[in-house]
Amino acid sequence: MLLPTIGQTNEKTLYEQIYLHYRGQIETGEISAHEKLPSRRRLAQELRVSGTTIDAAYAQLLAEGYIYAKKKSGYYAAALDTPATVESRLIPAAAKDVMEREYPFELRTNLVDMEKFPFSTWAKLMRQSLTEDAEQLLTPMDSQGDIGLRIEILKYLEKYRGIKANAEQVVIGAGSEFLLSLLVQLLGREHGYAVEDPGYAKTAKILAANGASVYGIPMDREGMSLAALSKSSAKIAHVTPSHHFPLGIVTPVARRSALLQWAYAEGGRYIIEDDYDSEFRFSGRPVPAMQSMDRHGRVIYMNTFTKTLAPSMRISYAILPPDLLTLYQRKLSFYSCSVPKFDQFTLRRFLQGGYFDRHLNRMKSLYRSRRDLFIETLCAGAEGKICAGGQESGPHLVVTVNNGMDEGALVTAAKNKGVLVYGISEFYRNAQKALKSTVVLGYTGISEADLITAANLLSEAWFGGMRSARQS
Amino acid sequence: MLLPTIGQTNEKTLYEQIYLHYRGQIETGEISAHEKLPSRRRLAQELRVSGTTIDAAYAQLLAEGYIYAKKKSGYYAAALDTPATVESRLIPAAAKDVMEREYPFELRTNLVDMEKFPFSTWAKLMRQSLTEDAEQLLTPMDSQGDIGLRIEILKYLEKYRGIKANAEQVVIGAGSEFLLSLLVQLLGREHGYAVEDPGYAKTAKILAANGASVYGIPMDREGMSLAALSKSSAKIAHVTPSHHFPLGIVTPVARRSALLQWAYAEGGRYIIEDDYDSEFRFSGRPVPAMQSMDRHGRVIYMNTFTKTLAPSMRISYAILPPDLLTLYQRKLSFYSCSVPKFDQFTLRRFLQGGYFDRHLNRMKSLYRSRRDLFIETLCAGAEGKICAGGQESGPHLVVTVNNGMDEGALVTAAKNKGVLVYGISEFYRNAQKALKSTVVLGYTGISEADLITAANLLSEAWFGGMRSARQS
Repeated sequence: MLLPTIGQTNEKTLYEQIYLHYRGQIETGEISAHEKLPSRRRLAQELRVSGTTIDAAYAQLLAEGYIYAKKKSGYYAAALDTPATVESRLIPAAAKDVMEREYPFELRTNLVDMEKFPFSTWAKLMRQSLTEDAEQLLTPMDSQGDIGLRIEILKYLEKYRGIKANAEQVVIGAGSEFLLSLLVQLLGREHGYAVEDPGYAKTAKILAANGASVYGIPMDREGMSLAALSKSSAKIAHVTPSHHFPLGIVTPVARRSALLQWAYAEGGRYIIEDDYDSEFRFSGRPVPAMQSMDRHGRVIYMNTFTKTLAPSMRISYAILPPDLLTLYQRKLSFYSCSVPKFDQFTLRRFLQGGYFDRHLNRMKSLYRSRRDLFIETLCAGAEGKICAGGQESGPHLVVTVNNGMDEGALVTAAKNKGVLVYGISEFYRNAQKALKSTVVLGYTGISEADLITAANLLSEAWFGGMRSARQS
Repeated sequence: MLLPTIGQTNEKTLYEQIYLHYRGQIETGEISAHEKLPSRRRLAQELRVSGTTIDAAYAQLLAEGYIYAKKKSGYYAAALDTPATVESRLIPAAAKDVMEREYPFELRTNLVDMEKFPFSTWAKLMRQSLTEDAEQLLTPMDSQGDIGLRIEILKYLEKYRGIKANAEQVVIGAGSEFLLSLLVQLLGREHGYAVEDPGYAKTAKILAANGASVYGIPMDREGMSLAALSKSSAKIAHVTPSHHFPLGIVTPVARRSALLQWAYAEGGRYIIEDDYDSEFRFSGRPVPAMQSMDRHGRVIYMNTFTKTLAPSMRISYAILPPDLLTLYQRKLSFYSCSVPKFDQFTLRRFLQGGYFDRHLNRMKSLYRSRRDLFIETLCAGAEGKICAGGQESGPHLVVTVNNGMDEGALVTAAKNKGVLVYGISEFYRNAQKALKSTVVLGYTGISEADLITAANLLSEAWFGGMRSARQS
């Protein structure tokens, strides 16, 4: 059986190419009925694409009836005596598999290492929820989510983030993106919203998509610039004081107080504290959340399990101050909770059983050792021309490279070696203001072996052919 | 062990009362450590409250450490040598258990009979997804949802609703409420949105919460009034042509065409076809969706699995016409899909295996026989003073009672007998325009025996002491 010939230059995506190859082979009989197709793993290795790409191609062949699955065995070519049911509906010109890997080594900042996810524990808890919560699983639930899960979340936050709140104040939603949309509905789109610049681009996109005016406020060394914030007409400030993305700044207590004072100075001002990465601080005690310093109910705390568990789990939460809770209950409690009960019950058990704590600790030490390995390897070939920042907390590095290349040249040279890195200007609303010759490197979604290879390739790309001390 | 004394007159909710009773008894030692608490079922029966209310109270006692659970055995009082961890955080004055039942018989329109849900099949498919899709479960997914599920949904829609579309056009989201918010972001909140009046009140609430201008358009006997729609400045019309809520109108083909012509007459006009109840048409062939008549890409089709499976499953979908798909991909594809992969995979298997078809057929005949039983019992005591409509499709009845009472008196008389019914004016934006002496009765979430009792109680309430032919 022929393996598909695929490539980046082809107009079609990798997933389409693989799909079309096997569809063609099965239609022409080159692969005969009931012949076994290569395993996902083997095909991914041979073609050097991600397993997800293979999954997408196979899922489509399966759905269209070109192949069938045998449990614990694999995929087999179907006998095509009848035409396939949904006739190649799935390949419009614009088809794009967003999950497809473009480069052999991708230092993305939004990946989570799934191999370390305690899957068998999670599966066990799912089975428990199925058995023990069966009756409750199918009935409607509170708009704000399962009270049991909300209690567990608060217990966790009280212990690790110093949060003081009441389970009534917690709103569970299908991801921070959803919750942010909900907050705009709650607070009103007529107000200005301040976002950090640079910052996580989606925040501004979501606010804008919901019709709010968005003001990019520059960062100084301590966090969002207070002078710029005060000058703006924003009433709501979205900040990431625990760990700024991408700069890695941890906002000190004095600035946090000053931000709170800004909020207190005028009625209707609020701070949205997005604490999304606070779990992965590598040294020292974690800084308590701003919410714990707030004495006048002006901080909305938000966090997510997307980064700490898996991107495919859409569970986030917000903690509303009392007056906003009242407003929520009056204005928005007609909404159904957007997270399925089953997922909430399973997560509740995961928290209750202490599995979440253990998982976080494991991931923290894993990420810490990856970071050390990566910095060491990268610096070995750099002859002091590299300066890494933001490594104290959070699972990515901000690296300034003093080799004479500008940001664009750094990114292109890396890509030419097969390594995807981000130029930091991507995270600025005005690219002109970006740090010079600086890139952002994520190291959480890539194995140790690949990290070493990637670091060596970056050394080659940026410091010309020098091989680092460590070989992959 | 004392059972709690609870009542509606108490200021606290039933769930609080039960919680506080057991907490008190455990704290004072009246219930000793390791003593078993009454079972959920028994307590629900004794106190005449719903199992969900007991669940809520027990969940809170559990979370706060007052009781502990033994698998397959029940709940036991904890030994309180250490104080409970989260100290009665959960009972602020405003606490309200939204799920709590207020009347012994509730003819709500938003309930689904969960006892008939094929739970063991669903659990089996969940386990299969856990085993077979394990690797894929934790990786990020396409913004629009799992392609395999989107294909299965289209196969279903093609067969039963005449929909012609491409899996690319399907957007999966955590409930229709979420998707409607997304549609406002896509189409723009600067346009006017027409909603049916009377209609499903949440639609207007969601549109308004998202900042859109909402116009209530009166219904005539065929559906949304075209004259009123044309006179309004709405550009988007939200309609339920398969089965209007609450009137039960099935919009005939000529009116559907006319609505389409309205959309075609001006650039930027769209119809949102909410097909939420189309599965439960009891006689004749289902009317194909408007989407299948649309030749110019002006219909956005929406549907949900909330009504056909379970309210706690938050899976809905929209089918975008091609130009809106392009707009979505440009403007909103930064959003992550809001439905967990696991749920999508399980549902895909449920559709693939034909279980959904079978479940729908079973529910259809169940609901049909309940409807017949209910109408028969109700009419037996009414001496022709009752006129039921909307029974041809959809799981609720619109009943006009000619006994001299107005709507308010009908509702109050029913409640005095312990039966919750809705006055139809609740669904009108202007209550003055409502049908006179008319109530809406849902019969899907209540057992046959309870339905007969409820119908007899309604006969007593409305036709004075007469007992109907059937006894409960």
